[in-house]
Amino acid sequence: MTEVILHEPLDMHLHLRDGDMLRTVAPLSARSFSGALIMPNLVPPITDGEMLRAYRHRILEAAGENCFKPYMTLFFKPEYDFDFLAPLAEEITAIKLYPAGITTNSEGGVSGFDVETLRPALEAMSELGIPLCIHGETGGFVLDREREFVPIYEELAVAFPELSIVMEHITDAVSLEALERHPNLYATITLHHLLITLDDVVGGMLQPHLFCKPIAKRPEDRQALLHAALNAHPKVMFGSDSAPHPRHAKEAPGCAAGVFTAPVALPVLAELFARHGKLEKLQHFVSTNAREIYQIDPPVKKVRLVDTPMQVPEKYGEVVPLFAGREIGWSIADVEC
Amino acid sequence: MTEVILHEPLDMHLHLRDGDMLRTVAPLSARSFSGALIMPNLVPPITDGEMLRAYRHRILEAAGENCFKPYMTLFFKPEYDFDFLAPLAEEITAIKLYPAGITTNSEGGVSGFDVETLRPALEAMSELGIPLCIHGETGGFVLDREREFVPIYEELAVAFPELSIVMEHITDAVSLEALERHPNLYATITLHHLLITLDDVVGGMLQPHLFCKPIAKRPEDRQALLHAALNAHPKVMFGSDSAPHPRHAKEAPGCAAGVFTAPVALPVLAELFARHGKLEKLQHFVSTNAREIYQIDPPVKKVRLVDTPMQVPEKYGEVVPLFAGREIGWSIADVEC
Repeated sequence: MTEVILHEPLDMHLHLRDGDMLRTVAPLSARSFSGALIMPNLVPPITDGEMLRAYRHRILEAAGENCFKPYMTLFFKPEYDFDFLAPLAEEITAIKLYPAGITTNSEGGVSGFDVETLRPALEAMSELGIPLCIHGETGGFVLDREREFVPIYEELAVAFPELSIVMEHITDAVSLEALERHPNLYATITLHHLLITLDDVVGGMLQPHLFCKPIAKRPEDRQALLHAALNAHPKVMFGSDSAPHPRHAKEAPGCAAGVFTAPVALPVLAELFARHGKLEKLQHFVSTNAREIYQIDPPVKKVRLVDTPMQVPEKYGEVVPLFAGREIGWSIADVEC
Repeated sequence: MTEVILHEPLDMHLHLRDGDMLRTVAPLSARSFSGALIMPNLVPPITDGEMLRAYRHRILEAAGENCFKPYMTLFFKPEYDFDFLAPLAEEITAIKLYPAGITTNSEGGVSGFDVETLRPALEAMSELGIPLCIHGETGGFVLDREREFVPIYEELAVAFPELSIVMEHITDAVSLEALERHPNLYATITLHHLLITLDDVVGGMLQPHLFCKPIAKRPEDRQALLHAALNAHPKVMFGSDSAPHPRHAKEAPGCAAGVFTAPVALPVLAELFARHGKLEKLQHFVSTNAREIYQIDPPVKKVRLVDTPMQVPEKYGEVVPLFAGREIGWSIADVEC
């Protein structure tokens, strides 16, 4: 039997939604992760301290007794300034910026990336040490959206050298290259973008449960992402972007974007890293790098993963997970906290 | 009011299926087209004269009294030789070659494109003047499949210079370039590939009713196809690839590939050509070119299209058409035959 013990695993990009959905999915992340960066794109989005505290409270209630820390984020608004952010700095781990209309519940996001318009907010964040997380896609052709956004990442990285900028859920090899050029650029990579390409979504039959934003790209892009993850590139963190939608919203025309990976993320990552002989790097990818980049100290938790197969449920509540109904090669043996 | 009168419109790539589906869709094509090249990928595929004649009979029965001629095709097998094909030559308009497993009901297709293996069949076809239609995709990455197939088209065009080869439902600008290099290469273009790109399939929400093979490509590819169609490139013909699937097969995970365009094809083409000030080229794209390339003389039919809007039904039987439930700008005013 092969095993790996992960300490304080972290999911640095997680959608927990709200209400019944929150109650369904929060325990699944809380069970195996020590903490997660919680995306703020609710309806309406989380844009002040009161909403943030109330959401944090609902998350903790839904998560149960699991030694799980939700790292909270605000939904970026150009109006945020030092006076607004300073009193909140201790309660927020990052601020998430969405270009307007680019993904689920992003309608209130930013239109245009004029540095001067963004300056008050981004300087305040620099000063307060609050990282900026960005869903970096333009409104261009679907396969070009991320690479077209890279110059915007770079312009912001240069204009705000003290600001940590996280390129969220990168899918394109050119995004990795940008990491090398700017000390203050970081990135998250999802599980599904390590596994699939556009072929898996539209190459055979159409697979709505693998439809996500950014869309999975070419085999050479996946290969580059996999190389960065397996070798625990120090500027790269695991962020699942696990995004639950009820089954009816995924399996109808106008299918919503998102892959629900939270409940299988750690076993599947262990299987993937083991297959590539890189198990010893997994700790860095799912925890160490994030702790250093975000300067966070998550609740103690020890997750033991073993190469004993598990059967993935068809659904969790109304949500169909990655590998639904299939057997995966690894499973969680026990969790201590 | 603007109008255009089309004489003997032809759909040079049509899926009519069989049984109830045939009875649902055949009248829709027969109403507005003078003839159509009928794809042979039934289950089992059409591979001999008896099957072909029986299918032709079922099509005519389903089509009703509509002055409609089904131009029949066989499903290509390398075993076909002169002795087999010669007695059928008058009854078949073309032979359709599918790479094995590349699309709906193509499991019995060709694996590998070794010229010597294909020589007996393709020389017999050359001698008998039977064109070869090919679904030209490799098993590669979904966006590269057609461009990877172009060298195979070219190798066949050179090896069999007397054989007319039709590159079916082309979607990639490089396929158009190949047309210029070989006198015996021709192409069909669908309606949907003149209208959509990959953005329309996966760029917003996922749209299963626009999922087809080959998958729609980049904006510059669509632009090149549109340029060829609107200018009535003499080697390019309209072939709808209209491919009906029951709604439940399109709107579930594992969605089947195909767009059902037959009932709206002529009005939408008229609207498209009119918008680009190219109405006078439509006759070539939907009839004249095909008549010359295939040397066919279809039943007399006069279709008058006008810029009076029509409401597209939500469904025809169980099949959801392109623009279901929406208004389109043109309609068929009358048909004479």
